[in-house]
Amino acid sequence: MQIRYGVIGTGALGGYYGGMLAKAGGEVHFLLRGDYEYVRENGLRIDSINGDFRLPTVNAYSAAETMPECDVVLVCVKTTENNRLPDLLRPLQRPGSVVLLLQNGLGVEEDLAVRLPEAEIAGGLAFICSQKKGPGHIRHLDYGKIDIGSFNVKNTVVLNQMLDDFRAAGVSAELSEELSFARWRKLVWNVPFNGLTVVMNTTTDRLLAHDSTRRLAREIMLEVIHGANRCGVGLRESLAEKMIDATLEMIPYTPSMKLDYDNSRPMEIEYIYSRPIETAARAGFVMPKTAMLESQLRFLGDECGV
Amino acid sequence: MQIRYGVIGTGALGGYYGGMLAKAGGEVHFLLRGDYEYVRENGLRIDSINGDFRLPTVNAYSAAETMPECDVVLVCVKTTENNRLPDLLRPLQRPGSVVLLLQNGLGVEEDLAVRLPEAEIAGGLAFICSQKKGPGHIRHLDYGKIDIGSFNVKNTVVLNQMLDDFRAAGVSAELSEELSFARWRKLVWNVPFNGLTVVMNTTTDRLLAHDSTRRLAREIMLEVIHGANRCGVGLRESLAEKMIDATLEMIPYTPSMKLDYDNSRPMEIEYIYSRPIETAARAGFVMPKTAMLESQLRFLGDECGV
Repeated sequence: MQIRYGVIGTGALGGYYGGMLAKAGGEVHFLLRGDYEYVRENGLRIDSINGDFRLPTVNAYSAAETMPECDVVLVCVKTTENNRLPDLLRPLQRPGSVVLLLQNGLGVEEDLAVRLPEAEIAGGLAFICSQKKGPGHIRHLDYGKIDIGSFNVKNTVVLNQMLDDFRAAGVSAELSEELSFARWRKLVWNVPFNGLTVVMNTTTDRLLAHDSTRRLAREIMLEVIHGANRCGVGLRESLAEKMIDATLEMIPYTPSMKLDYDNSRPMEIEYIYSRPIETAARAGFVMPKTAMLESQLRFLGDECGV
Repeated sequence: MQIRYGVIGTGALGGYYGGMLAKAGGEVHFLLRGDYEYVRENGLRIDSINGDFRLPTVNAYSAAETMPECDVVLVCVKTTENNRLPDLLRPLQRPGSVVLLLQNGLGVEEDLAVRLPEAEIAGGLAFICSQKKGPGHIRHLDYGKIDIGSFNVKNTVVLNQMLDDFRAAGVSAELSEELSFARWRKLVWNVPFNGLTVVMNTTTDRLLAHDSTRRLAREIMLEVIHGANRCGVGLRESLAEKMIDATLEMIPYTPSMKLDYDNSRPMEIEYIYSRPIETAARAGFVMPKTAMLESQLRFLGDECGV
């Protein structure tokens, strides 16, 4: 079955995953903003560790209203843009369309479901190092797996077709039984490393090179793990040490929030910090260190006017 | 009764308080390092909101061994120098000498008592804005009160004479019944504002201008208050709001730890953070936010090699 894809946000994530689907012969429609003219003329260029490729011609749009209805819409914008999602998604929806929120944090599906009740929503966690190098030019540095989970998808035929398409396109995609498990699990990494690299103005390797911040990162990870467990998501404490070991083996890494901050873009504080804190609090669990990081990030975001 | 004073560390604190005693006719002997030559030639200059004055000739020393025995020694160095204290104090001691540790934090008296068991020790908390402007040149900007408490002083005659001398010299000095009360009370301010101005690279007024960091400062204050209370020191929760209000009325202020950090000097992390955390922990109380600030400060101190 050939299904039609829409991509909202053609940057490091959307450009790569949409590009991979298109390269494999999928029908993909890309929504762009600043890069629209350039991509319409020149297509997409993806430099990937798995092999560079170009898509000289892509279906490029500058407004959602001009896009066709799609079976699957990949939402690849930052969560700081999510207030625009209902308007961006409505023109692409038809009964049975599946929206895949390829975003970090907690609560994005819940919020969209309130504002777009007819949508069938799934969430995705991308484990990838990729960057936008320039207009229509994506650099895929490492990894690439997506963990996908249904939030309220009834159209499992389309959901499964999407998984098949990803795999056929060379993207490792797994269906998680429990979306909240996948979301909390990724937060175990994102909460300490995104925030601490911003507040301490450093990279993951420097944080882990110091006893004090390595211990702090582990404590924050455990706080997230305990918060998840209180919310009924079973994460093991050993995950903290595993993620630290994996991070030590990565090249010195600048997480996305640090890139956002350094480039004066808004940070994804709401969904990566505030929502997990609120969710855990409703389950009776306090996350003091995560909350402190949230406060520090809000200060920095405000002070820099981002 | 005329008693003899020694001052260890003739900077913003020692220059001011020693200078005030000398101006009032007290016998004061000043230990200096880099400024020794200059002060021996030119004396001290104190620009004070209560009236500028000069002391053209002071008893200046470059080595503790050359100083006379003193009845009272005012220790006005940063706690980061405290490993040097036994050697600096021994030459000035005689039976009945009182050492006044005019320093922030918790545990300075305990540590000195272990290393100099014969010493009679008091602690002092200085509520003062003063700066060293140059060699032998102190600028006293505001406040000036000292809260003093005995740690193990038997010679109460000398202790009381010191209090009388301070008052006669125009320094408001109060004897606190409970030294640990005075120390914890000052920590309620020092723990949030010293650390957060360093980590967030800002001043007290900016911290308090933002909801997030104002709330965080209050939470850290409450953590210190609860830690104190668990250690048997009765501090009221309302102290937090009072100190925030008082800080809002101050001019934009750069705490001493921020000045130390900006000038690549070691920060007083040990006595302002680590010791209170340890002391509270022994009493069964966890201070997660204070501990997180400690970790962040240790990282910054290490990264900058201070």
